[in-house]
Amino acid sequence: MAIKAAVDETDPLLAKHNRTISKSTSQLALVGSRVCPIESLDFEIAEIELLNQDLRARNVRVEFFCYLILKWALCFIIGVFSGCVGFFFNLAIENIAGVKFVITSNMMLANRYLWAFGVFVASNLVLTMFAAIITAFIAPEAAGSGIPEVKAYLNGIDAPDIFSFRTLVVKIAGCITAVSSSLHVGKAGPMLHTTACIASLLGQGGSCKYRRRCRWLRCVKNDRDRRDLVTCGAGAGIAAAFRAPIGGVLFVLESLSSWWRSTLLWRAFFTTAVVVVVLRTLIHFCKSGKCGLFGKGGLIMFEVTAESVSYNLVDLPPVIFLGVIGGILGSLYNFLLDKVLRFYTHINEKGRVYKLLLAACVSIFTSCCLFGLPWLASCRPCPGGISEACPTIGRSGNFKKFQCSVDHYNDLASLFFNTIDDTIRNLYSAGTDRAFSKYSILLFFVTSYFLGIVSYGLVAPSGLFMPVILTGATYGRLIGMLMGSHSTLDHGLFAVLGSASFLSGSMRMTVSVSVILLELTNNLLLLPLVMVVALISKTVADCFNTNIYDMLVKLKGFPLLQRHTDSYMGQLTVGDVVTGPLQMFNGVEKVGNIVHILKTTGHNGFPVIDKPPFSESPVLYGLILRMHLVVLLKKRCFLSSQINTSEQFSADDFVKRSSGRRDSIDDILLTAEEMEMFVDLHPFTNTSPYTVVETMSLAKAHLLFHQLSLRHLLVIPMLNSRMPVVGILTRHDFMAEHVLQLHPFLVGGRSKLLQFRKSTEFLRDIC
Amino acid sequence: MAIKAAVDETDPLLAKHNRTISKSTSQLALVGSRVCPIESLDFEIAEIELLNQDLRARNVRVEFFCYLILKWALCFIIGVFSGCVGFFFNLAIENIAGVKFVITSNMMLANRYLWAFGVFVASNLVLTMFAAIITAFIAPEAAGSGIPEVKAYLNGIDAPDIFSFRTLVVKIAGCITAVSSSLHVGKAGPMLHTTACIASLLGQGGSCKYRRRCRWLRCVKNDRDRRDLVTCGAGAGIAAAFRAPIGGVLFVLESLSSWWRSTLLWRAFFTTAVVVVVLRTLIHFCKSGKCGLFGKGGLIMFEVTAESVSYNLVDLPPVIFLGVIGGILGSLYNFLLDKVLRFYTHINEKGRVYKLLLAACVSIFTSCCLFGLPWLASCRPCPGGISEACPTIGRSGNFKKFQCSVDHYNDLASLFFNTIDDTIRNLYSAGTDRAFSKYSILLFFVTSYFLGIVSYGLVAPSGLFMPVILTGATYGRLIGMLMGSHSTLDHGLFAVLGSASFLSGSMRMTVSVSVILLELTNNLLLLPLVMVVALISKTVADCFNTNIYDMLVKLKGFPLLQRHTDSYMGQLTVGDVVTGPLQMFNGVEKVGNIVHILKTTGHNGFPVIDKPPFSESPVLYGLILRMHLVVLLKKRCFLSSQINTSEQFSADDFVKRSSGRRDSIDDILLTAEEMEMFVDLHPFTNTSPYTVVETMSLAKAHLLFHQLSLRHLLVIPMLNSRMPVVGILTRHDFMAEHVLQLHPFLVGGRSKLLQFRKSTEFLRDIC
Repeated sequence: MAIKAAVDETDPLLAKHNRTISKSTSQLALVGSRVCPIESLDFEIAEIELLNQDLRARNVRVEFFCYLILKWALCFIIGVFSGCVGFFFNLAIENIAGVKFVITSNMMLANRYLWAFGVFVASNLVLTMFAAIITAFIAPEAAGSGIPEVKAYLNGIDAPDIFSFRTLVVKIAGCITAVSSSLHVGKAGPMLHTTACIASLLGQGGSCKYRRRCRWLRCVKNDRDRRDLVTCGAGAGIAAAFRAPIGGVLFVLESLSSWWRSTLLWRAFFTTAVVVVVLRTLIHFCKSGKCGLFGKGGLIMFEVTAESVSYNLVDLPPVIFLGVIGGILGSLYNFLLDKVLRFYTHINEKGRVYKLLLAACVSIFTSCCLFGLPWLASCRPCPGGISEACPTIGRSGNFKKFQCSVDHYNDLASLFFNTIDDTIRNLYSAGTDRAFSKYSILLFFVTSYFLGIVSYGLVAPSGLFMPVILTGATYGRLIGMLMGSHSTLDHGLFAVLGSASFLSGSMRMTVSVSVILLELTNNLLLLPLVMVVALISKTVADCFNTNIYDMLVKLKGFPLLQRHTDSYMGQLTVGDVVTGPLQMFNGVEKVGNIVHILKTTGHNGFPVIDKPPFSESPVLYGLILRMHLVVLLKKRCFLSSQINTSEQFSADDFVKRSSGRRDSIDDILLTAEEMEMFVDLHPFTNTSPYTVVETMSLAKAHLLFHQLSLRHLLVIPMLNSRMPVVGILTRHDFMAEHVLQLHPFLVGGRSKLLQFRKSTEFLRDIC
Repeated sequence: MAIKAAVDETDPLLAKHNRTISKSTSQLALVGSRVCPIESLDFEIAEIELLNQDLRARNVRVEFFCYLILKWALCFIIGVFSGCVGFFFNLAIENIAGVKFVITSNMMLANRYLWAFGVFVASNLVLTMFAAIITAFIAPEAAGSGIPEVKAYLNGIDAPDIFSFRTLVVKIAGCITAVSSSLHVGKAGPMLHTTACIASLLGQGGSCKYRRRCRWLRCVKNDRDRRDLVTCGAGAGIAAAFRAPIGGVLFVLESLSSWWRSTLLWRAFFTTAVVVVVLRTLIHFCKSGKCGLFGKGGLIMFEVTAESVSYNLVDLPPVIFLGVIGGILGSLYNFLLDKVLRFYTHINEKGRVYKLLLAACVSIFTSCCLFGLPWLASCRPCPGGISEACPTIGRSGNFKKFQCSVDHYNDLASLFFNTIDDTIRNLYSAGTDRAFSKYSILLFFVTSYFLGIVSYGLVAPSGLFMPVILTGATYGRLIGMLMGSHSTLDHGLFAVLGSASFLSGSMRMTVSVSVILLELTNNLLLLPLVMVVALISKTVADCFNTNIYDMLVKLKGFPLLQRHTDSYMGQLTVGDVVTGPLQMFNGVEKVGNIVHILKTTGHNGFPVIDKPPFSESPVLYGLILRMHLVVLLKKRCFLSSQINTSEQFSADDFVKRSSGRRDSIDDILLTAEEMEMFVDLHPFTNTSPYTVVETMSLAKAHLLFHQLSLRHLLVIPMLNSRMPVVGILTRHDFMAEHVLQLHPFLVGGRSKLLQFRKSTEFLRDIC
C-alpha cells in the first residue's frame, strides 16, 4: 500500500501544473510565401475499441467493396481532371502569349519598333502583376512551384491551406498569367501542385471552408488514404505536363514520396494512364483548329526526328563531357538560387508592396532582355530546301523575322522572342545544325541561366522544370556546335542530352529524367545515352551540394524526416533525447484536468495510464489523441463518478475528414460543474501504440519512426519504474537541430560530422 | 531479497531443461525440385558493442568511400556479366536450335520425311534429357524458372544453394539445352535466376564451397547489402532477356521485391543501363555475321512497323474484349498449372528415374506436336509484292516451306516449326494480316496453351514468360482476325495487345508489362492501349485466383511475409500467438548451458538477461544471435569466474559472409572443464532489439515486423512481471497456418474469413 501511495503522490497531472512547458510541438515554416504553423500527419492505424465495435457491427464486405470502387473512381476522376487541367494550362498560355507575340510582331512589321516594345513590356507587366497580386492578397500559399510543399506533405507535414480551394484557383490563374507574361518560369511544378490539390479536395469531398462538400465523397477518412490520393495526383501532374505517364509515376517515386508500396504503383499508373488518354483526346480535338492559336504549340512532343539515331564509341567523350558540365552548372545553379532566395526573403519580409515591386522589376528587366538582346544578332539568310516557312512572323517556327528584311531571319529572336515551349522545340529539332550561330546560343544560355535564377522567388506561381530544360538544351547545343565534325550526333540530340544533364545536375533525378525525356522525344534508342549523362551529372553535382527540392524544403523550414540516419544518432539513446515533463491522463480522468492540459500544451497525443485503484501497478493503457479528446468534450458525455459511459458516439465522430484546421479546444465552453465531472477515456484510446525502450539507440528508433510513418512513439522505461512511460518522441525529436540543442557536447563532434557529411552527402544518398 | 530468490528459482535455463521444444524454427520448402530446410535472413542493424568499438577505431571515411565505390563497381560488373550472359543464352539457343531446324529442313527438301521426323525427335530428346539429367543429379535447385526462389529470397527467406556456383552452371547449361530442344519453355525466368546468382556470388566474393573467393570482394558483410545486389541482379536479368532497362527495374519493383527505397532504384537502373549497353555492343558485333546462325534471331526487337499507329474510339470495344478474354484465360492457366504441378509432384516424389521419364515423355509428345500438326494445314500460295523471301527453307522467316511445293508455304509450320522467339516475331510483324488462316492460329493457340502448362513442372530450367507471351500473341491475332473489318488496327498490334492481356492475366503485372512491351516493340503510341488491356485483364483475373508467382511460392512452401495483414490478425494480440518455453541467457553465462541450448534448439536468437546479482531486478540486456555464440565458443575465450574478457575478437569474426551454410555448433568440441567455465555475452549482444508489448495486436506487430524486415521481434510484458521478456516472434508466428493451429476457435471465423478473403482477394491486393 505504501507503494501505491507514493505513486499517487507523483500524479503527473499535479506535477506538471507547476512546471513550464519546455517543448513547443507546433513549428513554423514558409508555405508558399507565407509563414504559418505546421502540424504532423497521422499515418498510424489506431486500434480504438469504439471503432472496432463499430466495424464489427457493420456490413464490412459491402462497405469494403464500395470503399474500393470509390477509391478507384477517385483515381479516375483525378486523372480526368488532371488531363483537363493540363490541357487548359497549355491552351490558355499558348493563346495569351500567342496573341501578345502576334500583335508585337505585326507592329514591328509596320516598323513601329518603339510601340512594339512598349506594348510588349506593358502586357508582360500587367500579366505579371495580376499573378503577383492575386498570389500576395488571396493565397500566398500558391507562390512558387509547390513541389516542396507536396514533398513535405507526403513526408507527413501538414501545412495549412496548401491544398485549399483558394490555393487551387490562384495557382491556376497565377501560373497561366505568369508563364504568359514571358517571365522565365515553368508550368510543370504548378501543374503538379494543382493536380495534387485536386486530389486532396476530391479526397475530402470538396472544400471545407466553403462548405461545398459532396456527401458520398466523404469516405476518405484518414491521412493514409489522403496521402495515397495526393501521391496519385502528383504523378498525374507530371504526366499532364510532359505527356509522360511512366515518367510521372517514376518522378513521384524517385523524388517526392517518402513511402511507397507496389499497389500504389498500380493506382498511380492507372491515374496517369487516364491523364494521357484524356490529353490525347483533347489534342486530337484541337487538331481541327478549334483552339485558337493552340495547335503546333505546347504539349506536342518534341520530336527528335533523326530517323535512326546511331552512335558509337567516338561519341562517348563529348557525352561524358556534357555530363560533367551539367553537374557543375547544376550545382552552381542550386547554390546561386539559394543565395538569391535568401536575399528575396529579406525583401519579401518588408511587406506586400515590396513583394509586388520586386515582381514588377523582374518583369520589366525580363521584357527588356527578351526584346533588346535579339538586336545584337545580325540577320541570317534563310536556308534553302526546307519545308518550313522562313522567315515566320506569327508566333511559332524556327526562323523569326524580327527586324530583318525579306528572306532573312534573326536567330536570337527565334530563341528569345518565343514561349519557352517553342524555344525548346526549336533547340530540339533535328537537321537545324546551321540555324543558330555560336554567339547567339552562348548569349542566350547566359541570359536564360540567370533569368531562371532571378525569376523563381517571386510571389507568383512559378515552376523550375521548363527553365532548367531550356537552359540545359542551350548549352547542350552549344557543345554540339563546338564539337563540330568530331561528333556525328545531331545538334538536336545534343540539346536533349544537355537538358538531361542539367535536370539531373540541379534536381538530381536520374531514372525519371531519363524516362520523361524518353517519353517527351519518343525515341527509345536515345535511352542509354541519356542514362549515362544523367548518372554522370548527378554524381558530379552531388559532390558540391544537395538537390534543389531538398534545398527549398530546408529553406522553407519544413522538418522533413529523412530516410537515412546521421551517424551521431547511433551514439545517443532514446532516453537522451526525450524531454519532459510528460502530460498523461488517467483511464478515468477529471474533465477539468483534460481541459487544462489541452489549453496549456500543444501536444497532440497523450498516454493513458491505469493507476493503482484500478490496476495493481501503473500500467500503460494506450495513447489518446487531442482530436478525439476535443470530440469527447464537445459531446459532454461525462460521468459524475464512475458508472460506464452511455454510448452516444459513432465511429464517424472520430474520423479525420481533411487535413488542416480542425475543432479547437478554445471553442468548447464548459460549466464549473462539468469541469468537476469525470470522463472514461478507455473506449477512445488507441490501445496499441508503438513503443521503444529508453535504451534503444536513436538511430534505430528513427528507422522505426520513419518506416512506419508515425506521429508519436512512446518511450517506456527499461527498469520497472513507477511510471510506465518515460516520454513521447515526435518528428521534431529526430531533427538534428533539436538533438544538438539538447546535447551541445555533440556540437564539436558535429562540426566534424558536418564536414564529413558534406563531403559524403552524395555518398550516403546513393548507398 | 525474497523477490530476488524467487526470480532465481525460475531460472529459465533450469526450467527449460525439463520441457520439450514445442516450436521448430527451421521449416521445409521445395527449392527448385528439392525439398530442403530454409532459414530466415537477418536484415536488422545489430548494435553490438564490439562492432561499435571497432567502428570507432577505424578510419571510417576512407573505408566508407572504398565500400561505396566497390558497391557501384559490383553493380557495374553485375551489369556487364548479365549482358554477356543474356547474349550467350541467345547465341547458344539460336545456334543449337538453328542447326537442328536447318538439318531437318534439308532432309524434308530431299523428301526424306521420316528421317527428318526421326532426327527432330531424337535431337530434341537428347537435348531435353541432357537438361533434365544435369538438373536432377547435379543441382535440383536449378529446376523451374527460379523466380519464386528469388522472390522468397528478397522477402527474407534463405534457401540453401539457390545462389551457388553449381546452380549457376546447371541453370545456364540446362536452360540453353531445354529451350533449344523445342520444349515449350522460356528463357527469361532462368535468365533472371542466373543474373541474381551472379550478383549473389559476386557479393560474397566467389563460391564458398569451392573456396574460390576473391579477397577484396569480401566486403559485402551483411544480408542487407546482399539483398540489394540480388535486387539489382534480378532487374538485370529481365533487362537482358527483353532488352528493357526500365521494364527490368519495374518488374523487380512490382513483382519481386518486398522492400524498396529510392536509392536502390538508382542503382538498379544503373545496372540495367550497363546491361543494355553491353548487349547493344555485342549485337552490333554480330551484325557482321560472325555469330553463326545468330543474327536475325533472338534479342532483336519485335518491331511493330506500322509507321504511325492510329486508333480511335471504335477500336476500344475489341481491346476491352481482349482484356476480359486475357483475364479469364490467364486465371484458367494458373488454375490448370497448379493442378498439373501437384500431379507432377506426385510423380517426381517417386525418384529421379520417374522425373527423367516424365521429361522424356513430354519431350517426345512436344516433338510429335511440332512436327505432326503442320501437316493438317494446306499449302498457301506466296503473296506477291513482299520484300521477304517466300518460301524460306532455313530457320527464320514468316513463310516456311515445310512440305509444300515451290511458291507455296505452310502457315502452321511458320508457327510450330520455329523457335519461340521467331514465332513471336512472326505474330507481331505488321502487314501480314493475310499470312495465316484462322484455323491455323486457333489450332496453334490451343496447342501452345496446353504445351505451356505441361512443360513447366519438368525437372529442368524452364521459364514461363516466353510461352505466355507467345500464347497471348496467338489469341490476340485470332481476335484481330475475327474482328475483320470492324477494326482498323493491324493484326500484329492485336498480337501485342494479346500478349499484354495474357501476361497480366496470369502474372498480374500491369506497369512492368506495359513498359516491357513498350521497350520490346519500341512504340510509345501503343502505351495507352496496352495499359487499358493490362488493367482490365488483371482486374478480371484477380476475381478468380492469385498470380502465378504467389501460387508457385505457396506450392513450394515458402513462408512469404505478406505486406497486408489479414483481418483476424486484428482480433489477436501478440501474447496470444507467442509460444514458449523461451530460451534465455544470463549476461554472464555458463558455457555448458550455451552448448546445451544451442544443441537442443534450432532458435537463432536468444534474449540476454541481467539478473539480480548484477542488477536490481531482471533486465533485458539485448539479443544474441546463434551465429555469434558459435563464434564465441569456437574461439574458447572463457572466464573461470568473472574477470573481464580479454579482447581477442575482431569485428570481422562476426561478419556474415554469405547466405546459406555456416559454422554449426556440432563442429565444436569442448572439454568438460571448459563446459564449466563462463563467458561474458555483453560485448556480443545486440543491445537494441525491437520490442512490442504483449498486448499489441498481431496486425500492428506484423506491420512492424514486415516494414523493418526483422528476423526476431521481442515481446515484453505489459505488467511488471518477474521476467522482462515474454517471448520472441519470428516469421513463422505470422503465418496463417501457425496462428490458426494455436487458435482453432478462429477456424470457424476463418472459414468465413477465407470465403470473404477469396472474394476480396483482388480487392485487398489493389487497395
